[in-house]
Amino acid sequence: MTLQRPQLALPGALLTDLYQLTMLQAYFDRGMFDTAVFEFFARKLPACRNFYLAAGLEQALDYLEQLQFSEAELEWLSAQRMFKAAFIDYLAGLRFTGEVHAMAEGTPFFANEPILRVTAPLPEAQLAESRLVNLLHFQSLIAGKAARVVLQAPGKRLVDFGLRRAHGAEAGLLASRACYLAGFSATATVLAGAQFGIPLAGTMAHSFIQAHVDEVAAFEHFANSLPGSVVLLIDTYDTEAGAARVVDLAPRLAAAGIRVQGVRIDSGDLGEHARKVRAILDTGGLNEVTIFASGSVDEYLLRDLQAKGAPIDGYGVGTKLDTSADVPALDCAYKLQEYAGLPRRKRSEGKATWPGRKQVYRQYDDDGCCCGDVLTLEGDTAPGVALIKPVMRHGRRLHPSPSLEEVRAYTRLQLDSLPAALCSLDPAAYPVHESEALHLLAAEADRLVGRP
Amino acid sequence: MTLQRPQLALPGALLTDLYQLTMLQAYFDRGMFDTAVFEFFARKLPACRNFYLAAGLEQALDYLEQLQFSEAELEWLSAQRMFKAAFIDYLAGLRFTGEVHAMAEGTPFFANEPILRVTAPLPEAQLAESRLVNLLHFQSLIAGKAARVVLQAPGKRLVDFGLRRAHGAEAGLLASRACYLAGFSATATVLAGAQFGIPLAGTMAHSFIQAHVDEVAAFEHFANSLPGSVVLLIDTYDTEAGAARVVDLAPRLAAAGIRVQGVRIDSGDLGEHARKVRAILDTGGLNEVTIFASGSVDEYLLRDLQAKGAPIDGYGVGTKLDTSADVPALDCAYKLQEYAGLPRRKRSEGKATWPGRKQVYRQYDDDGCCCGDVLTLEGDTAPGVALIKPVMRHGRRLHPSPSLEEVRAYTRLQLDSLPAALCSLDPAAYPVHESEALHLLAAEADRLVGRP
Repeated sequence: MTLQRPQLALPGALLTDLYQLTMLQAYFDRGMFDTAVFEFFARKLPACRNFYLAAGLEQALDYLEQLQFSEAELEWLSAQRMFKAAFIDYLAGLRFTGEVHAMAEGTPFFANEPILRVTAPLPEAQLAESRLVNLLHFQSLIAGKAARVVLQAPGKRLVDFGLRRAHGAEAGLLASRACYLAGFSATATVLAGAQFGIPLAGTMAHSFIQAHVDEVAAFEHFANSLPGSVVLLIDTYDTEAGAARVVDLAPRLAAAGIRVQGVRIDSGDLGEHARKVRAILDTGGLNEVTIFASGSVDEYLLRDLQAKGAPIDGYGVGTKLDTSADVPALDCAYKLQEYAGLPRRKRSEGKATWPGRKQVYRQYDDDGCCCGDVLTLEGDTAPGVALIKPVMRHGRRLHPSPSLEEVRAYTRLQLDSLPAALCSLDPAAYPVHESEALHLLAAEADRLVGRP
Repeated sequence: MTLQRPQLALPGALLTDLYQLTMLQAYFDRGMFDTAVFEFFARKLPACRNFYLAAGLEQALDYLEQLQFSEAELEWLSAQRMFKAAFIDYLAGLRFTGEVHAMAEGTPFFANEPILRVTAPLPEAQLAESRLVNLLHFQSLIAGKAARVVLQAPGKRLVDFGLRRAHGAEAGLLASRACYLAGFSATATVLAGAQFGIPLAGTMAHSFIQAHVDEVAAFEHFANSLPGSVVLLIDTYDTEAGAARVVDLAPRLAAAGIRVQGVRIDSGDLGEHARKVRAILDTGGLNEVTIFASGSVDEYLLRDLQAKGAPIDGYGVGTKLDTSADVPALDCAYKLQEYAGLPRRKRSEGKATWPGRKQVYRQYDDDGCCCGDVLTLEGDTAPGVALIKPVMRHGRRLHPSPSLEEVRAYTRLQLDSLPAALCSLDPAAYPVHESEALHLLAAEADRLVGRP
């Protein structure tokens, strides 16, 4: 018997914008069921992001495979008296029957490069917009942020601590997935362990220490209850005094066969405290005890701590990661690029898009480092590796999804192939060349559709 | 027969941090079941937030009333081999049996003022931390941001457009609730209408226009399908040309008994376009047609547009609101303030807390404007209105919750009672006086617990 994995229930078909349903009513009335092509891409990257990582495809495909309106949802919609009865009947039978092409999760992407393309009858492709953006935007956002953290802390153990200040339940859960994909070692979020098999980690809170009158009693009590994972939080009252207490306590625990694995520091100047705590531990013979730090950690703090050689072995990274605090949203869109065989694009000020079905070719130099992309149309050829591949047909996955471990290993290789400048925290541009074919199709779209 | 309201399923007891479970194992081993008091509060407010609004209590109480481990969750936990069998048995019977005191949803709050207090056996109060913070933090964050938007747009229709770039499903849903509570008129998120009864609004996307070869055909088609809500998106190709097309089309629609209610602009300089579009519509006899604007709207843009007298009747506010983009997290905590009858506090650098069970008294001037708070201990008295009240006992609500409409009306009164300086976008401080009793208890806590 296999163990059931507890998981977060999915939100259903009503997690969408009202205008998707009003547009569908109009498409239905007019019989507009021809094939539409939508692509999801970032319009531009912010100055403090040299790249993003494609993430969320797995959840996007789950959504499409399971998309349907329940009886209760249809009854509720019907009761709103906004839609015609024949249309509600149509919704009852609506399933996603189309194709999806996508970049593999963990692939770095740049402005205007689609990471997902949906090819389906117009109403199906339209309806899916809100939730597809919601899923792809958030995980790509967090994976991109997490990659920056990972790149600033080579060899360090990184744990996602962000659930409490993540934006709701699903954000906490999917942030754990996106961080792990990008190279984190573990998460504190239990449900992410259950649902995705991500390794779990955790220590103790200040409340545990405070609930005991005496700090040493708290340490000893915890060690006796959880002898397999003794990481003691030492900053509740005085960090260095806490470290000295660990030194005093360690021999008593050792006599009982219990080893102190580490200490955690969660406040003050982490580098400065770590230096003092390391000295106290080493002088006390606890050279093997690791130092774990948390509290407002992000990639900038990590860069500084690394530069100073702070003796910290691992980090808990929370709020600034799970909210992508410096850039909590990516300027992205899911846009109609073709309908009924004609190329389409919007020309709105500052928001014009490239029409047609795209392909991205990535070129590599002799060292295996990527050195430039060509954004062109599907069917056109260019040197390099084609990044966009078919993943779904007739509303079903073409292949079983790779495991999260496989995605994580692939992501590691992808990060290794990035030019050094892109991996730093200083802004750096990556060349993306828009092909002649793309320019020609844009001109054709302007000639054929929405003419002045 | 009452209509079933479709809603988002709740995430279950495993949506917590691992350390809550390891601490519970230790509490269980040692029989630490005495009464603990935890409070949730903001440590400090950022410079660009003069106040926050308490929000999320309703979901927090739902969580506490429903807290229990399912069979599948217990089996999964057991299979991890981290916990003792007797402890898993204990978890099977664990329910929340304690008390909750709280500020009413919609009440403005300031640094160090608790908006929720949990009084319960230590393991119950501890376990709930991660999810309570996750719920209270996010809704208070968004309600505070939404209040800023509302205060900069008096008399304007405000609609939440944020689902797609909200951080996951629950963020999109609860952001709608928090915005509506703070004074928004409607949301585009259908599930928020279903679950919370929030009025729905929506127009059309650019893809709808693009799917038609001709813009006028798209307008006419939509109006015929949805004659009750004709708001036409006019910026897909050229905003002013789009407005002129609406003028041409309106008489034809009027002849069919269909009235154009409004137009929407989603790109470019919204104020400048609105001025030109207003002139085109008025010249065309469409004085009654309203202008709705969207695209990167936040409180700063609204202030500027209002100052210029932009002829815009309503706004769709999305990404910057639903992610609280300028401050996507609030520095908040859920801290142990008392255990087994003794006051407790942490003294960590920059993160020291006030011990004991608190009360907040808010004083008002002769104009009904609030003019200062006293933060003191429960049982102490001070002039003003006591804001923290009992809401749950023995794990059950004391009273039925107010409806969301009632909360929204209360919030309106609360915002009306704020000093003008706090309602502006310039930083302004509000006086919160910490009582003598609080200082004395902090000294006592330091003497009794965690002594050096």
